[in-house]
Amino acid sequence: MATLGMIEYADASPEVREVYDDIMTTRQTDWINNFWKALAVDPPTLRRTWQSIKQIMAPGALDPLTKEMLYLAVSASNQCPYCIASHTASARKAGMTPEMFAELMAVVGMANETNRLVSGYQVEIDERFRPR
Amino acid sequence: MATLGMIEYADASPEVREVYDDIMTTRQTDWINNFWKALAVDPPTLRRTWQSIKQIMAPGALDPLTKEMLYLAVSASNQCPYCIASHTASARKAGMTPEMFAELMAVVGMANETNRLVSGYQVEIDERFRPR
Amino acid sequence: MATLGMIEYADASPEVREVYDDIMTTRQTDWINNFWKALAVDPPTLRRTWQSIKQIMAPGALDPLTKEMLYLAVSASNQCPYCIASHTASARKAGMTPEMFAELMAVVGMANETNRLVSGYQVEIDERFRPR
Amino acid sequence: MATLGMIEYADASPEVREVYDDIMTTRQTDWINNFWKALAVDPPTLRRTWQSIKQIMAPGALDPLTKEMLYLAVSASNQCPYCIASHTASARKAGMTPEMFAELMAVVGMANETNRLVSGYQVEIDERFRPR
Amino acid sequence: MATLGMIEYADASPEVREVYDDIMTTRQTDWINNFWKALAVDPPTLRRTWQSIKQIMAPGALDPLTKEMLYLAVSASNQCPYCIASHTASARKAGMTPEMFAELMAVVGMANETNRLVSGYQVEIDERFRPR
Amino acid sequence: MATLGMIEYADASPEVREVYDDIMTTRQTDWINNFWKALAVDPPTLRRTWQSIKQIMAPGALDPLTKEMLYLAVSASNQCPYCIASHTASARKAGMTPEMFAELMAVVGMANETNRLVSGYQVEIDERFRPR
Repeated sequence: MATLGMIEYADASPEVREVYDDIMTTRQTDWINNFWKALAVDPPTLRRTWQSIKQIMAPGALDPLTKEMLYLAVSASNQCPYCIASHTASARKAGMTPEMFAELMAVVGMANETNRLVSGYQVEIDERFRPR
Repeated sequence: MATLGMIEYADASPEVREVYDDIMTTRQTDWINNFWKALAVDPPTLRRTWQSIKQIMAPGALDPLTKEMLYLAVSASNQCPYCIASHTASARKAGMTPEMFAELMAVVGMANETNRLVSGYQVEIDERFRPR
Repeated sequence: MATLGMIEYADASPEVREVYDDIMTTRQTDWINNFWKALAVDPPTLRRTWQSIKQIMAPGALDPLTKEMLYLAVSASNQCPYCIASHTASARKAGMTPEMFAELMAVVGMANETNRLVSGYQVEIDERFRPR
Repeated sequence: MATLGMIEYADASPEVREVYDDIMTTRQTDWINNFWKALAVDPPTLRRTWQSIKQIMAPGALDPLTKEMLYLAVSASNQCPYCIASHTASARKAGMTPEMFAELMAVVGMANETNRLVSGYQVEIDERFRPR
Repeated sequence: MATLGMIEYADASPEVREVYDDIMTTRQTDWINNFWKALAVDPPTLRRTWQSIKQIMAPGALDPLTKEMLYLAVSASNQCPYCIASHTASARKAGMTPEMFAELMAVVGMANETNRLVSGYQVEIDERFRPR
Repeated sequence: MATLGMIEYADASPEVREVYDDIMTTRQTDWINNFWKALAVDPPTLRRTWQSIKQIMAPGALDPLTKEMLYLAVSASNQCPYCIASHTASARKAGMTPEMFAELMAVVGMANETNRLVSGYQVEIDERFRPR
């Protein structure tokens, strides 16, 4: 189910298949999840989104597990059910244990609490914290 | 500046000073930032918030740097200026390099983009992603 | 399903029916969707909300299709499932093609990404962009 | 400062003055705050917004203080600096004490925390909580 | 259903049971809702979250009904389905009538509207509203 | 001012200058705004973000003015001060009149209001609105 429908591999154009193949190769998996099948109705968006994610989530100064946990933290904070479900799965695949998930969620919860305390109390930024 | 004013160490009650002292000891620092000085007008909230943060941010299944980066990711996603400034400072103190910051922000940006693509396209959760 | 139940046309008071009739006439349709049936338990809110929407969505400096797409863009950004479903339907009725939907969603996604990059990097507003 | 400028009472059209007068009478005050002066560039929006707020904030099943505190709670949760400043002022005028403000903010903070814990843990709604 | 599963009373450790018992005693109820059963996989988070909520929601400068309505207002504004369902139930138990619910929701809706008008029009904070 | 500083044209590497040049050519302008100068500390993010925006904002099924207004609507809804200021400027350059701005903001405000009414009243999606 998706607004404009979803494109299965068997029905995909060569352009879309190329992206699907790269997703499966990069992620070492043999299936395509609904997000990509929904975006595939708009091949430029499918390609651009995948290229961006591939670049951003590759190992760099941060390792893949940390990146997946950051992605999950933002998705939980934004309360996106699909994104929480899919990135919980990815983070687990990358090595997130139940203990790490629980600590991650505690941080997400606390950050959301103090973000509002700060705003609600109209706290001014300390000089030492300002960027130069 | 804060809605109910801020309480400096010199003017603090013994109850508030005890929290301030614990903050400075735990964080190995010699000053108190505005957030705590604003909360100090309500000692139970000051104490509870500090006790919660102290417990949540202590090393556990996740190391302190990862926790600080998760805190910063949520604050950036929520667009809280004070929280971004203060947690950028804490994350740097915990070891976040400019390269790590840049990668963190790239993940935060991308997560916010795909969270909306998923919702806007009304993508259904894949069976494999559902919790049991 | 709704917190306080929903009021069907057949069970509606004359005051509520008057609003329902105006909705159906204005929108050239023969049914009332759940949103209005849920609000109808509070007639002043039903009336005020409908009068506001009727005024705001009427053609003016912006045409109805553009207004429906703006409504959808905000609803997708806010991740409101009902609102996304209903305003996708309204926008399509007003002439939104699948290509327009896909481009709209690409803009919504990108705006959500750069909104966070800007906040996270603590970018100061350029003098040229400030309102006088 | 505002995107399209602000309209002072002395420069206002009779249509805008009528709204300004009603605001001052209803709120028993002798000045107009910037929000209304910014909206006044679009008289239909000025009128509609004021009429809606006047209706919604009038005493009813909830008293004016409770309504002002709900308005402030939402504004603090949404992190709108102007709205927090102005509705803190209105709530104080309606009788909110510093102790009430502090408890209100504690609830706002906690609600923001548990909202994310619930979403992040993907907690299913209990049957007993579902509306019929 | 929850990411890490849910812990029923019968299967709970003494540490978790102690919290469950305190929840049931404090709330004068004989069941535990899914939120707590999901958090129970992480006993420190279960305990800390419950202790915080117990402290925050206790009668003080604000009565329990007002606190429950503030909690519901934030949850509705954040669009958290579980939280809306559960806090609507709690607020009703504390005395919220359908009329009060309808007025609460009208305030929440209006606050969300004007929060964006203020930001979108870039309205500057009036000097009189600034905290000293 | 920005977390990691800003890179002026004169100090930019050839890689960054290439992006700056393309921005100025594409937008027919002779200056670079702070957003890009802040992102330039991370050239891959600078390049990727610009390439994405260039592709998304190009004329297609939607014209550039509509796209700029959608971008502004999302930024106003998200309450990002920098983004509101910069995209108000871009939308004006693309032809947005004060009347169009005012109508756009009225839609953004209303959408934010009804998004919360829908969620708060727990309104179920009408069968006719569901994607197939």
